[in-house]
Amino acid sequence: MTTPAPRYPAPELVNLPDDMRARILEVQDKAGFIPNVFLGFARRPAEWRAFFAYHDALMLPESVGRTSNLTKGDREMIVTTTSAANSCLYCVVAHGAILRIYEKKPLVADQVAVNYRKADIAPRQRAMLDFAMKVCLQSHAIDDADFAALHAHGFDDEDAWDIAVITAFFGLSNRMVSFSGMQPNPEFYLMGPVPKPPKLV
Amino acid sequence: MTTPAPRYPAPELVNLPDDMRARILEVQDKAGFIPNVFLGFARRPAEWRAFFAYHDALMLPESVGRTSNLTKGDREMIVTTTSAANSCLYCVVAHGAILRIYEKKPLVADQVAVNYRKADIAPRQRAMLDFAMKVCLQSHAIDDADFAALHAHGFDDEDAWDIAVITAFFGLSNRMVSFSGMQPNPEFYLMGPVPKPPKLV
Amino acid sequence: MTTPAPRYPAPELVNLPDDMRARILEVQDKAGFIPNVFLGFARRPAEWRAFFAYHDALMLPESVGRTSNLTKGDREMIVTTTSAANSCLYCVVAHGAILRIYEKKPLVADQVAVNYRKADIAPRQRAMLDFAMKVCLQSHAIDDADFAALHAHGFDDEDAWDIAVITAFFGLSNRMVSFSGMQPNPEFYLMGPVPKPPKLV
Amino acid sequence: MTTPAPRYPAPELVNLPDDMRARILEVQDKAGFIPNVFLGFARRPAEWRAFFAYHDALMLPESVGRTSNLTKGDREMIVTTTSAANSCLYCVVAHGAILRIYEKKPLVADQVAVNYRKADIAPRQRAMLDFAMKVCLQSHAIDDADFAALHAHGFDDEDAWDIAVITAFFGLSNRMVSFSGMQPNPEFYLMGPVPKPPKLV
Amino acid sequence: MTTPAPRYPAPELVNLPDDMRARILEVQDKAGFIPNVFLGFARRPAEWRAFFAYHDALMLPESVGRTSNLTKGDREMIVTTTSAANSCLYCVVAHGAILRIYEKKPLVADQVAVNYRKADIAPRQRAMLDFAMKVCLQSHAIDDADFAALHAHGFDDEDAWDIAVITAFFGLSNRMVSFSGMQPNPEFYLMGPVPKPPKLV
Amino acid sequence: MTTPAPRYPAPELVNLPDDMRARILEVQDKAGFIPNVFLGFARRPAEWRAFFAYHDALMLPESVGRTSNLTKGDREMIVTTTSAANSCLYCVVAHGAILRIYEKKPLVADQVAVNYRKADIAPRQRAMLDFAMKVCLQSHAIDDADFAALHAHGFDDEDAWDIAVITAFFGLSNRMVSFSGMQPNPEFYLMGPVPKPPKLV
Repeated sequence: MTTPAPRYPAPELVNLPDDMRARILEVQDKAGFIPNVFLGFARRPAEWRAFFAYHDALMLPESVGRTSNLTKGDREMIVTTTSAANSCLYCVVAHGAILRIYEKKPLVADQVAVNYRKADIAPRQRAMLDFAMKVCLQSHAIDDADFAALHAHGFDDEDAWDIAVITAFFGLSNRMVSFSGMQPNPEFYLMGPVPKPPKLV
Repeated sequence: MTTPAPRYPAPELVNLPDDMRARILEVQDKAGFIPNVFLGFARRPAEWRAFFAYHDALMLPESVGRTSNLTKGDREMIVTTTSAANSCLYCVVAHGAILRIYEKKPLVADQVAVNYRKADIAPRQRAMLDFAMKVCLQSHAIDDADFAALHAHGFDDEDAWDIAVITAFFGLSNRMVSFSGMQPNPEFYLMGPVPKPPKLV
Repeated sequence: MTTPAPRYPAPELVNLPDDMRARILEVQDKAGFIPNVFLGFARRPAEWRAFFAYHDALMLPESVGRTSNLTKGDREMIVTTTSAANSCLYCVVAHGAILRIYEKKPLVADQVAVNYRKADIAPRQRAMLDFAMKVCLQSHAIDDADFAALHAHGFDDEDAWDIAVITAFFGLSNRMVSFSGMQPNPEFYLMGPVPKPPKLV
Repeated sequence: MTTPAPRYPAPELVNLPDDMRARILEVQDKAGFIPNVFLGFARRPAEWRAFFAYHDALMLPESVGRTSNLTKGDREMIVTTTSAANSCLYCVVAHGAILRIYEKKPLVADQVAVNYRKADIAPRQRAMLDFAMKVCLQSHAIDDADFAALHAHGFDDEDAWDIAVITAFFGLSNRMVSFSGMQPNPEFYLMGPVPKPPKLV
Repeated sequence: MTTPAPRYPAPELVNLPDDMRARILEVQDKAGFIPNVFLGFARRPAEWRAFFAYHDALMLPESVGRTSNLTKGDREMIVTTTSAANSCLYCVVAHGAILRIYEKKPLVADQVAVNYRKADIAPRQRAMLDFAMKVCLQSHAIDDADFAALHAHGFDDEDAWDIAVITAFFGLSNRMVSFSGMQPNPEFYLMGPVPKPPKLV
Repeated sequence: MTTPAPRYPAPELVNLPDDMRARILEVQDKAGFIPNVFLGFARRPAEWRAFFAYHDALMLPESVGRTSNLTKGDREMIVTTTSAANSCLYCVVAHGAILRIYEKKPLVADQVAVNYRKADIAPRQRAMLDFAMKVCLQSHAIDDADFAALHAHGFDDEDAWDIAVITAFFGLSNRMVSFSGMQPNPEFYLMGPVPKPPKLV
């Protein structure tokens, strides 16, 4: 089957403004490929810049002079779990890959994507995901009991903000990626530590 | 009843970085008050800057050198309708107020917030809201038929992007405002043209 | 856009039976206008008479020789909140207006319509609305725990009946008004106490 | 297990006002027993009178000088189907019994209660139930296409009103009966024509 | 209305393999008729044999050398309740009939089918149905608290397995019966003890 | 964190009846490991035998003398997609692995599990999955239009039966695996063809 022309074609790297091209080349240098979202959103530079500034403020708090009690693995676990609730293939695959790397668990991405309640994660992470899922699906109903459940696992209100804003930001990303039909790069599917392959059928 | 101390107290205007304070004073000068979201999100400057840069890129496209076929009223109508679907009081009240002003219709904000299908709006706006609601609630299921329904009313794919990204961005905002318990300023409730008050009961 | 002929045109006041016309004129005299539901339902006199007899038995208990622990504001709050859950514009706007008057709070109608969980109401009213919403959305699942939650706030079983029957009756009204396309009178939108209007944008 | 005292005990027939007692005795004379709803709702006479006046205006249109294109069986079919959607045991059992009598089909009540889409009913009745179920579950979304689907089967707008108001009225009844824990009389379960009993297991 | 030819016609009994015919004749001899599922599924003998082997392992545990703390009535109650949740007419009617026989309660089948929460059953059976309904509708969310609720009523983990596998197996049956349009035999509707018929209307 | 003792410990292979042990050793010989479901369900031999007889009748039709127009890849795609809808980790991971092998597409399992509507599959397979998902989630509402949509892609009614029964059978499996807390073998996660791993972050 031939693929139809994309509805929102990505611009060429060479045609992008310098700041955007520099950032993208930096990612390519580190990861070995350019994740599609970098070029896919680049057709609107002002939105691109706001998106990645927001992204970095949340996912790289040190880059904006802030520390966070959430680990890198925690953050990616929130993204993978809530993106699965939003049925966003790109974010499940891309952030699931990074999650495997940070958590050093080859199975964790599939586990949280399909059913985080049965995943092999710490009770603290389970509480974190319960809160994230409520922000994702029923933010209007969050109340003091939801914060208390976080506090019982050592999270404070700044951590709650982190969980909420990561969930909310990737909810934006999930909707844009799904709406525009963006696909994850094949390279993501197997990034990170993996179990030994068995003898095949 | 005494109000408990807020979980996320807003910083004082005087303590904010210059760029943030300048922007906020500009808003206050224009509107006559400071919408709570400006101070409520200011506790995290990097997130604040990304949020309002994103906001302006979508809601003030001319400010980033872009034109849009959506009118100012269209944009506020999308925000009001999808924020109601997310049960976000702040955004329904604040953007409903601006919607009344731009559309010059005192009833339209309540209409789209309660049931946009029965609102007194143009068929083109009804199609716009159908698309926005699908991005809001079922972005994973958007397909070519949804775009075709927009095209039938004269929207092109750039307009579809506008509808989607405004919906997605305010979905982020809805979740942050609801999660953190932010309330709309009382001033918003009656902004804009209003019908003649009747004799009261 | 020209409005199509209504599917269910309202009869002329002059053509109505004496008892109905008298009641309607009394309302007009008090409110300054005739709420549309009075003429909209008048096309079927027997149903009209039963509807308003039922209405008065619930909303004006003294008129049938009964007292109630619910205040007038409580009753209108139940109507506004559950009508919003049923997406009924007419009842949200009309009863929201009366709610503002009785509660002397300009913001309360919008608050309970969009998200009653975050509204500035008494804990007792919050419990009342929790019960009403369960009658509205899941009446088959009401059990002793739901009554106990009411009792904890000083409501007795007669009050529970009041909450339930007001919710159930306006559920009927919501469905008839939505199905038949009835619109609220513009006069309702701004009835009641209102905050000072700000300087406009 | 001993049954707890009922939360809302029914009054004694002998203590009721004359008009109510007369009506109830008339029903008892005809049916051979007093359906529980007649005594269960009698504790509030004004509500009782409005309820049964409304009931008669809808279910016995000739009694209020109106004719209807819906048959008696049609009306009971609407009640049985929508009451099942509301999980109301009393109305499913009581009106299912009457439905069997009017339709002369021993199986039809169970069929429409469990899955009206697979019931052995006329296509016209299927369209009627589709409309009724939309009024029951999504009245805010009814639009011209729903009326057109009725018209295609020979229903006019007055018939649509009948379907809607019967659905809406029994939605009220369903909620009151479920909330108050009213049980159907055992006599209802086997009223109407029944198939020959088989040899038992 | 003439019935269209069935999409999946049942084979003739005479054409079936000996083992299947023998089993079916045995059922007919006991019940007085052949339940439609026996012939309806017989068009694929290998699936038929697996289906009924599974059925017997669950519903006739003694036939496979196993005992169960669930009574015959318990098992049929699970089937009737969860089949109603899946809107499967055949299983509600057929297993509701057997439920009436085993429980010796003429009303219980309708009660659990319409709203098991209000049925006249033991608290132990209510807990059993809560667990069954969670397996039916949200199996991914079952956790230790659900098992603890069973244990509080004297069920052990083997009983939990019984409840789960009966629910899961009839979920398979519900889907096949609904998808293929299979109807229950009329004989089922009135099997079992029944209340005295009243004087008809 | 130490893992608690499993609620339903699997029996030792050596203690199983000969027929079960032989079948399991055959699987182990072919796959290189014993999939957990084989031992997890073995604690109830009669159920185990019925389960795998059913499984083979559906997934290995040639083994029961039947041919099917569904390919091996089609069958595994149905299982992976509907198991994801049921949030069953075991079946998504195990059958996703086999799906990758049969379809020779390293990405297809993740694609259909997260959002089959956006997966890179043939239109015929998309129609197949639409039908499977309706059997999975709304079997009571399947009607002629659903069959017609299959026919338009060359499927006949026997193929429809195959799609339905595979969906229904794995719905049973999903519920049992989730309820009992069974985990997939780590070996499954990377079975099948995989893309070249990128340079890691």
